[in-house]
Amino acid sequence: MTSNQTARFLGSLRAVRHFSDRPIADDVLRDILEVGRRTGSSKNTQPWEIVVVRDAVTLTRLSELGGFAGYVATAQADIVLVMDSANNGFDCGRLAERLMLAAWAHGVGSCIASLFPDDNARRAKELLGIPAARWVRQTVALGYPADEKATRVAAVPRMTGVVPIGRKPLSEIVSWERYGKRS
Amino acid sequence: MTSNQTARFLGSLRAVRHFSDRPIADDVLRDILEVGRRTGSSKNTQPWEIVVVRDAVTLTRLSELGGFAGYVATAQADIVLVMDSANNGFDCGRLAERLMLAAWAHGVGSCIASLFPDDNARRAKELLGIPAARWVRQTVALGYPADEKATRVAAVPRMTGVVPIGRKPLSEIVSWERYGKRS
Repeated sequence: MTSNQTARFLGSLRAVRHFSDRPIADDVLRDILEVGRRTGSSKNTQPWEIVVVRDAVTLTRLSELGGFAGYVATAQADIVLVMDSANNGFDCGRLAERLMLAAWAHGVGSCIASLFPDDNARRAKELLGIPAARWVRQTVALGYPADEKATRVAAVPRMTGVVPIGRKPLSEIVSWERYGKRS
Repeated sequence: MTSNQTARFLGSLRAVRHFSDRPIADDVLRDILEVGRRTGSSKNTQPWEIVVVRDAVTLTRLSELGGFAGYVATAQADIVLVMDSANNGFDCGRLAERLMLAAWAHGVGSCIASLFPDDNARRAKELLGIPAARWVRQTVALGYPADEKATRVAAVPRMTGVVPIGRKPLSEIVSWERYGKRS
């Protein structure tokens, strides 16, 4: 595994929202969680717990508690990120990215499904028995991609032209030494 | 590159705070940024810009604006994450994790250095010419590890026993189907 291969792997992650019905083997799921467990966090507080949902009825309920999250109903699992507080958004993002990459290493696609709005997040906590004081917003839906086009499904299909496609070039987002100095 | 090798790579990332003085080649730094550029974000808003600091004087200034961030002065670069707003913490975490892993793929160590408290974040924005309205808290310090023990340096050396070491086992953080159901 060269540096270049690894970097290309990291850059190849795409959101997957069209899942096949192929199950995720227990050992694959556990390995994804094992990689996630090792994620770094502020002062190593590890301010997280995880609820793994695989039950089809619960997945369907969760799919109804998100914004544009219908695909959660067809996922093989939804990993619900349970954070200690609303201050843990940054660490939550690190954990989510790590889990998505770990899944992708196994060929498993994923997509962040947010519980939205707040009232739906509250309902999801009730559904899963999560203490009200915990902060729950993001989940990571997992499943093998349905086909080779599964990485090209837009987040908000009916908002084409509103949600941008692709990524900004480095020349638009990187400054050198000082903000706005583009080279 | 097998699934297993890739997963082990992802799980091998550790914070590095002791850097060697080996420079990071331009093409390596650009590749790290290139992988970071492709990070996913909420509704693909890509709510970020990046300021890459390599100037030694500026690095030293930044090292004085963080909490326990002295090591930034000895980094080869500090990647300042400039977010659109305070609501982008989750996406900021995804970007940071991606950048750290991309660096690690090239053998480059990294550590999140936070600008703290708020007044220091304000000073850092002034130093780098970043508009006051932007949200800047985390930076990613980069450098090759000083030695094989560089991944074992604690975040807060004088707080040994307060800052936990290692990571919690899966049995403490994962619930199945319902919060608290540990198997």
